[in-house]
Amino acid sequence: MSDAVAAAIAELKETLGERIVTSNAVREHHSHDTSRLAPVMPDAVAFPASEEDVQAIVRVCAAHGVPVTPFGAGSSMEGHIIPVKGGISIDTRDMNRIIEISPEDAVAVVQPGVTRKQLNTELRDAGFMFPVDPGADASLGGMASTRGSGTTAVRYGTMRENVMGLKVVTPDGELIRTGSRARKSSTGYDLTHLFVGAEGTLGIITELTVKLHPIPEHVSSAICAFDSVRGAVEAVIATIQYGIPVARVEFVDEVAIANVNAYSKLSLSPAPTLFFEFHGTQAWVAEQAQLVEEIVKDHGGAGFAWTTDAEERNRLWQARHDLYWATKAGRPGCELYTSDICVPISQLAEAIEAARIDIEGSFLTGQIIGHVGDGNYHVAYQVDPNDERELAEAERLVDRQIERALAVGGTTSGEHGIGMGKIKFLRREHGAAVDVMKRIKAALDPQGIMNPGKMGSAG
Amino acid sequence: MSDAVAAAIAELKETLGERIVTSNAVREHHSHDTSRLAPVMPDAVAFPASEEDVQAIVRVCAAHGVPVTPFGAGSSMEGHIIPVKGGISIDTRDMNRIIEISPEDAVAVVQPGVTRKQLNTELRDAGFMFPVDPGADASLGGMASTRGSGTTAVRYGTMRENVMGLKVVTPDGELIRTGSRARKSSTGYDLTHLFVGAEGTLGIITELTVKLHPIPEHVSSAICAFDSVRGAVEAVIATIQYGIPVARVEFVDEVAIANVNAYSKLSLSPAPTLFFEFHGTQAWVAEQAQLVEEIVKDHGGAGFAWTTDAEERNRLWQARHDLYWATKAGRPGCELYTSDICVPISQLAEAIEAARIDIEGSFLTGQIIGHVGDGNYHVAYQVDPNDERELAEAERLVDRQIERALAVGGTTSGEHGIGMGKIKFLRREHGAAVDVMKRIKAALDPQGIMNPGKMGSAG
Repeated sequence: MSDAVAAAIAELKETLGERIVTSNAVREHHSHDTSRLAPVMPDAVAFPASEEDVQAIVRVCAAHGVPVTPFGAGSSMEGHIIPVKGGISIDTRDMNRIIEISPEDAVAVVQPGVTRKQLNTELRDAGFMFPVDPGADASLGGMASTRGSGTTAVRYGTMRENVMGLKVVTPDGELIRTGSRARKSSTGYDLTHLFVGAEGTLGIITELTVKLHPIPEHVSSAICAFDSVRGAVEAVIATIQYGIPVARVEFVDEVAIANVNAYSKLSLSPAPTLFFEFHGTQAWVAEQAQLVEEIVKDHGGAGFAWTTDAEERNRLWQARHDLYWATKAGRPGCELYTSDICVPISQLAEAIEAARIDIEGSFLTGQIIGHVGDGNYHVAYQVDPNDERELAEAERLVDRQIERALAVGGTTSGEHGIGMGKIKFLRREHGAAVDVMKRIKAALDPQGIMNPGKMGSAG
Repeated sequence: MSDAVAAAIAELKETLGERIVTSNAVREHHSHDTSRLAPVMPDAVAFPASEEDVQAIVRVCAAHGVPVTPFGAGSSMEGHIIPVKGGISIDTRDMNRIIEISPEDAVAVVQPGVTRKQLNTELRDAGFMFPVDPGADASLGGMASTRGSGTTAVRYGTMRENVMGLKVVTPDGELIRTGSRARKSSTGYDLTHLFVGAEGTLGIITELTVKLHPIPEHVSSAICAFDSVRGAVEAVIATIQYGIPVARVEFVDEVAIANVNAYSKLSLSPAPTLFFEFHGTQAWVAEQAQLVEEIVKDHGGAGFAWTTDAEERNRLWQARHDLYWATKAGRPGCELYTSDICVPISQLAEAIEAARIDIEGSFLTGQIIGHVGDGNYHVAYQVDPNDERELAEAERLVDRQIERALAVGGTTSGEHGIGMGKIKFLRREHGAAVDVMKRIKAALDPQGIMNPGKMGSAG
């Protein structure tokens, strides 16, 4: 531990008391996320209880030039929260208060440590939901920082569309507000969107104002097997072109279906499959399902089973959600090495087909699923986490997917982010715009203390 | 003209030939927008035909420290495009090519001088529309720079939601790309949203990738008079809470109704009134109208006349669109002095009521209309443009509205922007965040040549 870090921790102990911790167990917990990237321990972990605490921590660290790395639920997937330069991890878990739910404005105001499940539990009685669902029970602060999304983005948008305003502690310890709960504004630079997706490299989010959506009166789900990936994707394109506001549309390839059949004791046809969900009034949901059924038939969909029964629907989506475990179970002891490509939807069928050809040509096994309404798909390779050769092969295949995506106007990551894992592609994707990003980083964080070694300073 | 400006113009003549103009008539045309702010002539006006031209202009101006001010259609309302420090106006009118329309990706790629009407004419045969409608036939580059919107934002969003990517010439003449046509991405700082709404102070937009929406199969309109402003606004809140995706919902107060009755030869009840529009399939449009009719009844709506007949619908919306002229005709020789407040919708009824009380207490006359689904309303005062006392009174009333809006979490401008006219409120609204904006401006435009005297340098 450097003198500067020791001095900062000593000063912070005076302010925070037991809210700053240097035990090995706590430091270890904050040394990694869910990625396979090498863990690095912070020198200490601070647990602020208020935005004043966050300001105090950042000010002390700024005075001593000590790195600070924000930490939400630890569910990030590309090493975002690994404190690669040591220093202080700021864990927002105790800033978990839902400050306000406003039915009139259809917004909630929350602290960054509130998780999406916590918020949705609280919202239920008011008839609202916060639909952004990255799978994990992530913190809202983390989801905003990663510009996260999930299965419902096709209808409700990502964190980009659902964060209306923020409070942020800047790298010099100032507290600023961005945006508001007014639904639109033409004043000032759009700082909200600058901090959303900045992965904690420009400041620390201490409060979020997020959009709420009414819980739909009626929900129905449908599942449909296709002759080909192309048929499935073209059905999705036609659905969107028609303006049908499908709430979810998930692609699951034949390999994943086989895994899920085995794991969840189902007997789905092992074919490229779409899972649909529709939200709305009863009549409108029925009409959406009927319209999509017609589109599906035109694109080689073989049968369209739909249900409004909640139990049946939950069973279906449970299977979709269990895909992670189903795929792990498909090769005992394996871990999943996952890509997160997003391409213009016109390029999606080709991208998925090419990914499948790659798998066939490799010694690895893998499955493909996708939030296809957004052009976002994940290939999950089943790898032995202790086999360097397998890991290298998975990395090679993911890199190939990314290169192909970038060549057709796609992006390295649809929802997982850059973190450490994808930093090598930042310039390949954004070119000279990376220099603009670096200038912004240097202007806001001239000492480079805010989540250093990541976006804005590296890449 | 300073030596630096003269040298820059001489250099640019070599590159641009007749595409750089110093005639008084052309300079005068670029000295003002539609606001009442004092005109300032640029020293010259450049008409680039390509992004290489824009780069060349910016590089020469950067080398000589000469201001550059982008100019679209000149329809801005707060002096955005007034070159207050002289220098070169860059008029993008000749960069008016629609580069691509992609039905599969539901995007268009356009040059910044393309106007919204031009784009929609081109889109019609493909079955798409670009719904953002600020009234004027503005250029897409200007609409993006102002973060513009209009009557359809409640359903389709503003320019914030509809610009997916940009090409931008930065203040040092570099050409960068931001965003992409992939529907989402978690990589890099969100520079697209930084340039959208920056009012040309951070760079010059040379290309836009925008979202398209399918032309709705069916459209219906309805009009409904209310007992009170509050009843009308609460009906809108309930409509949104219910999740009904109303395509437009416009508020028109009793004074405006009287003006429009006189001008458009209609006989609408002189009461607070809502104009609705619904988009969708025939059955879904009918259901939306029926649901809204029930909500309206619950909130003191006196009759709900709806129509799917295109001619009748156009007559109705024509009346809404003619409000500007109707109000001008209401006091011969007057000009309209207009506010652009946006508040959280929970605060809207009170804001409109207070604005009406202000008018009653003033010697001025005025009417109130609003894009109420967004909480955005405009008071238009009928003023004699040559009467300083009237102008001062209108300014006083607008300032009062803004102060009240800011006190309840609203914004100075919902869609017109800051320009010169509202710069005095920037810090009042954004507080210390303005310092962050200024740091970004200084980092990207250290010489301060890009639309100087506006947001980022002033305020």
